[in-house]
Amino acid sequence: MNRPPVNSLNTEHLEQLHRALVRLENEKCRGMILSSSSPTVFSAGLDIREMYKPELEKARKFWRTLQDMWLKLYSTPYPTVAAIHGHAPAGGCLLALSCEYRVIVPNVKIGLNETQLGIVAPQWFQDCMRNVIGERQAEKALIAGHMFNTEQALQVGLVDEVAADKAACIARAEAFLASQANLPLLARKTVKLGFRNSTLSRLMTGREADTKIFIEYIFQPKVQKGIELYLQSLSKKSG
Amino acid sequence: MNRPPVNSLNTEHLEQLHRALVRLENEKCRGMILSSSSPTVFSAGLDIREMYKPELEKARKFWRTLQDMWLKLYSTPYPTVAAIHGHAPAGGCLLALSCEYRVIVPNVKIGLNETQLGIVAPQWFQDCMRNVIGERQAEKALIAGHMFNTEQALQVGLVDEVAADKAACIARAEAFLASQANLPLLARKTVKLGFRNSTLSRLMTGREADTKIFIEYIFQPKVQKGIELYLQSLSKKSG
Amino acid sequence: MNRPPVNSLNTEHLEQLHRALVRLENEKCRGMILSSSSPTVFSAGLDIREMYKPELEKARKFWRTLQDMWLKLYSTPYPTVAAIHGHAPAGGCLLALSCEYRVIVPNVKIGLNETQLGIVAPQWFQDCMRNVIGERQAEKALIAGHMFNTEQALQVGLVDEVAADKAACIARAEAFLASQANLPLLARKTVKLGFRNSTLSRLMTGREADTKIFIEYIFQPKVQKGIELYLQSLSKKSG
Repeated sequence: MNRPPVNSLNTEHLEQLHRALVRLENEKCRGMILSSSSPTVFSAGLDIREMYKPELEKARKFWRTLQDMWLKLYSTPYPTVAAIHGHAPAGGCLLALSCEYRVIVPNVKIGLNETQLGIVAPQWFQDCMRNVIGERQAEKALIAGHMFNTEQALQVGLVDEVAADKAACIARAEAFLASQANLPLLARKTVKLGFRNSTLSRLMTGREADTKIFIEYIFQPKVQKGIELYLQSLSKKSG
Repeated sequence: MNRPPVNSLNTEHLEQLHRALVRLENEKCRGMILSSSSPTVFSAGLDIREMYKPELEKARKFWRTLQDMWLKLYSTPYPTVAAIHGHAPAGGCLLALSCEYRVIVPNVKIGLNETQLGIVAPQWFQDCMRNVIGERQAEKALIAGHMFNTEQALQVGLVDEVAADKAACIARAEAFLASQANLPLLARKTVKLGFRNSTLSRLMTGREADTKIFIEYIFQPKVQKGIELYLQSLSKKSG
Repeated sequence: MNRPPVNSLNTEHLEQLHRALVRLENEKCRGMILSSSSPTVFSAGLDIREMYKPELEKARKFWRTLQDMWLKLYSTPYPTVAAIHGHAPAGGCLLALSCEYRVIVPNVKIGLNETQLGIVAPQWFQDCMRNVIGERQAEKALIAGHMFNTEQALQVGLVDEVAADKAACIARAEAFLASQANLPLLARKTVKLGFRNSTLSRLMTGREADTKIFIEYIFQPKVQKGIELYLQSLSKKSG
């Protein structure tokens, strides 16, 4: 991902990611490392500006583009690994959770922190977290919108290993891909989809309902007020 | 809970708990610590005397009161934490499992030990255990009616932390509530119910069947014989 | 199991196991240790020769015999424990996973390694693994067809304990059975079936479809080619 400063996911960047995933599939790619050009952030998650003072059709397109990208990422036939050498809140965490393996560096925060912002993480975000860290830890983390630090993320199984720095992180991600390289492609892909099918299907059959929840949510005046306050706090930080 | 000597749950005490939960909800309570007035017991669980030589209507009322109380406890909009500074077998363990967080003291035993008594823990008791410690550990513990000691309970994730004594236990429970205090209420509650909804629904849609299983079970002569022997062993212990 | 050299599971051996399980049930057996006569192998899994150059009716019978044996093993009313003092790939791992408790010795490999062979582990094999080690670890292991060594198997919860050698392994298996011996039979059995019912039902209602998947799979020319290469590599090893 290379959308400075923090790889926040707007409609355009989601479309870029989606096209990249399709291209990799068509090119019979043997593995993908999802990484960031930022020195400190993996991805800041959904671009909240797409939700501020929304227009109906643009907001709907944003959400459907996110769904499309995720349906593709979560079901790639090739191995995927997240090299998390920077913070990964909310949608950034979703990207990491959707890969097959996660390597992280020290001093990073990762989690679905939507609750802290007064937002409810979509069901499929929550499903991804539950699939990785289990029912109990997912309930505890999602109720509180908890951001895990590196040690906590490893301990709870949210990531698979810790590497000392960005270079080591990429090297370990490559090692994961190497470990998958000689596996028979068809069997590998079939097993992966078998595991992920119920989570994928849940979104696919409930796409319209999921979009509707998002739209109704962001069009609430108090939600808009919350987003406004949040954007103001961001601009103060950067000012 | 304050029903000496061991907070056993009879119809009256369950009604008291239920009323307290409703009152806390109406008063927009920001958090509840479930604790015990006993120095050694959190709650001894269901009052087995309510099952001994039962009358049909009283037995049905007992079970429905238990269901009502639990449906309320498991779905509170406010944060709940169990301060387990005493033993918590069977129904006592259910109460602890139904909170959002559990702090325990050393030298305590906790578990769904129904199997040891020849009773099958109701499905929703089992669901609560599975939701907290996962499928494998729940199967192993419930088949054997295992009572975990403090170290085992922590290790398996049945409790979240250990505190040195009752005062420290309450203090840590308060710290949990403090950690939840600034979270947006609506988002927090929505996420919690999202996680707990399938377990709640399973009982709600199967209430009559669940009650029938209980009634048919306790009206079996051999079950009555087992309860009689158990009550005799209790009176010997206290004698 | 005593089918030298490696307890591979052909139709005949599966029938023997099935008959033994039925007999133990009829004799009101109080517990079973599943063990191997081999010094180095628990069970090598399904006998791949049953899948090589198959005849339709024989292949169907093989698969239905495997299903029958497993439905019986997974649902025994008496406690079961696997004493894994030798390697347990694929179907050998399934046998171990289907017991209620697992003791292993050092320097053993265990896992559902079907993916490595270009085969997709049947859904119920995968369900058994998921029930024991959870969604995340099962996904990771099954995608890669990972063979766990003893330390990994303990760490991930695939086995319950490690014993120093075969004698200690059998002794610990006996200790598990002793721990279950005084539990009320009916309650114990009811809880066990309650946990395992959804996994059992999934195969029972989908038996024909499961058989069809197996048959269509092994009748593919490229699968036959893969089996042929594998058998050649085996005969080279032993040659």
